[in-house]
Amino acid sequence: MIDPVTLAQALLRVDNVTPARGAVFDVLEAALVPLGFAVDRFVVGDAPDGPVENLLATRGTGTRHLAFAGHVDVVPPGEGWTGSPWSGEVRGGLLYGRGAVDMKGAVAAFIAAASGSDAGTLSLIITGDEEGPATYGTVALMERMAARGIVPDLCLVGEPTSTARLGDMVKIGRRGSVNIWIDVPGRQGHVAYPHLADNPIPRLIAILAEIETVMLDKGTDWFQPSNIEVTDIAVGNPAHNVIPAKASARLSIRFNDRHRGADLIARIRTIAERHAPGAVVTGKVSGEAFLTEPGALSALLSDAIIAATGITPELSTTGGTSDARFLSKLCPVVEFGLINATMHKVDEAVAVEDLLALTDIYAGVIDRALR
Amino acid sequence: MIDPVTLAQALLRVDNVTPARGAVFDVLEAALVPLGFAVDRFVVGDAPDGPVENLLATRGTGTRHLAFAGHVDVVPPGEGWTGSPWSGEVRGGLLYGRGAVDMKGAVAAFIAAASGSDAGTLSLIITGDEEGPATYGTVALMERMAARGIVPDLCLVGEPTSTARLGDMVKIGRRGSVNIWIDVPGRQGHVAYPHLADNPIPRLIAILAEIETVMLDKGTDWFQPSNIEVTDIAVGNPAHNVIPAKASARLSIRFNDRHRGADLIARIRTIAERHAPGAVVTGKVSGEAFLTEPGALSALLSDAIIAATGITPELSTTGGTSDARFLSKLCPVVEFGLINATMHKVDEAVAVEDLLALTDIYAGVIDRALR
Repeated sequence: MIDPVTLAQALLRVDNVTPARGAVFDVLEAALVPLGFAVDRFVVGDAPDGPVENLLATRGTGTRHLAFAGHVDVVPPGEGWTGSPWSGEVRGGLLYGRGAVDMKGAVAAFIAAASGSDAGTLSLIITGDEEGPATYGTVALMERMAARGIVPDLCLVGEPTSTARLGDMVKIGRRGSVNIWIDVPGRQGHVAYPHLADNPIPRLIAILAEIETVMLDKGTDWFQPSNIEVTDIAVGNPAHNVIPAKASARLSIRFNDRHRGADLIARIRTIAERHAPGAVVTGKVSGEAFLTEPGALSALLSDAIIAATGITPELSTTGGTSDARFLSKLCPVVEFGLINATMHKVDEAVAVEDLLALTDIYAGVIDRALR
Repeated sequence: MIDPVTLAQALLRVDNVTPARGAVFDVLEAALVPLGFAVDRFVVGDAPDGPVENLLATRGTGTRHLAFAGHVDVVPPGEGWTGSPWSGEVRGGLLYGRGAVDMKGAVAAFIAAASGSDAGTLSLIITGDEEGPATYGTVALMERMAARGIVPDLCLVGEPTSTARLGDMVKIGRRGSVNIWIDVPGRQGHVAYPHLADNPIPRLIAILAEIETVMLDKGTDWFQPSNIEVTDIAVGNPAHNVIPAKASARLSIRFNDRHRGADLIARIRTIAERHAPGAVVTGKVSGEAFLTEPGALSALLSDAIIAATGITPELSTTGGTSDARFLSKLCPVVEFGLINATMHKVDEAVAVEDLLALTDIYAGVIDRALR
């Protein structure tokens, strides 16, 4: 049996802000090969979004196939840590380091869990770019899997989904995310002669005022209502006596599975063009919404959590996006991992107790999924 | 008799972007002293709005007192002139140079007109800072006049008020101008968790949408309707997934004599605070509206214009602010000068013919005002 704390420490001691390559994957490979995993490491992509290293490990020939997905890249540590962000040291029952909960700890826990089992087929889908643009991360891994005919039945993503206590929350879906830019053109002029100019701001205000009245939906059984936030307005006019030539706004929409990103962009475009015929609306869909309807997969995960902790997890779709949005195209996917309170913050840390409990939970998932 | 073209050339050949000091005033003094004017030059103010030079010239002891107000500072020439912006050269009947129409030409024309008359009392109120912040310009001249007991009965400002033909427009008033800043505070957060943040943008949009519905007035006999322009909106949020902590807008209101600047600031503040209780509204009044009701002064100016050109001028209150807003506190004030088509532009130029005609008109004004 691999000790999850020792393995997590080895991973945490590699300084590998996203995109991760090299040493941290060496640690993974050294742990996985003795467990019987066939390890496929590959580097893909060019600047600026690459190159990125990814790792695909498979073991077993059983008919049931469980995949675990995660990442070993981390966000920059920032300033103000008590110790080194790469120390991997245990103090007062807490294991410290950038990535302790997001999510080297979970990767270590799953490998430790796998070391105690030999059932079915197991895959690890580990990317070095989840925190970055993710252009050459999980998407590239899925292409690699397709090329090699690797198709799991179930997928568990190890993102830190727990909130107050380990086990209190499982993610069974994620909202989609789209950013939309609205540019309204006008004609510059002097404020003393407004009839000779064409101020784009009143049209932008009218567009945004209508958007503020839009209720996309009232939520569903599993999703909160979709939400539009205006995140920026920019005119960039330093001159007090000048009517500006353009006005722009940016929206961020987090939407549930009632919507698709392209439809939302089209809907905003319709509103914008009604108030400002020359408006230019562009959008970028970061991810579509997905839902793994509660069923066998969420049930076996909940059972494993209850068995290890006594806590019945909430099945949730809240929060930001994750790589589960890609993996959901492959097979049913759920997400469960450590407490996310310290992720992306200084002094990120995981309780050693939680790391051991997570290993038990993951072992329970492997057992229930593959037996 | 002084030749207005020769004097204008001497003024134009001094490179004196605002604030003007020194040489250009030497030219004025050299022209005025032989005409019997007592010349009072003084430098006032510290950086950044100063120091500024001003000139006050008076002649005569008649009971009727006409003042001419103007400036000899100029805006920067900019790039792209056919010749030097300081050449003062005549080509094809046009006298070229920065300030040719705004307003060294008019200053030269008035001095030339004064050289042919000895009636009543004449003053020249000439500042070196009309195009700049004007902190130490006409306001300082008025303080100097008050201290010396100089109180004109009538004031003519030589700004370039003509549009298509010399004589087609006289200004009998100016709209007021106020800039207003609205700052709406919020609480920053992640767009995926809007309930933990407080986006200030919807409140700013509501404020601006209501402001867009405000009709200040329908205009008066002499003024066009007051007008509110939103000239800038700034949020300054580069992060797509962040709800911003503040949102700001800037308004420029040009208003007629139905309003005062402070009342308009208060009115905007009331709207802002209704939608956003924590909003901070600040304002800066550049000038209050003023009107010299059509009467004896505008009539004698019109008569002088008709006599010299055959054109009946329109009495107007359009356009930006001018130093007449200050002088209106002293006595009735009207504005008349050259064609403003090239002012502040490259290759600023006045027709020699217009400069001679303006001299005739100013002579007619002196004659009618002081006889």
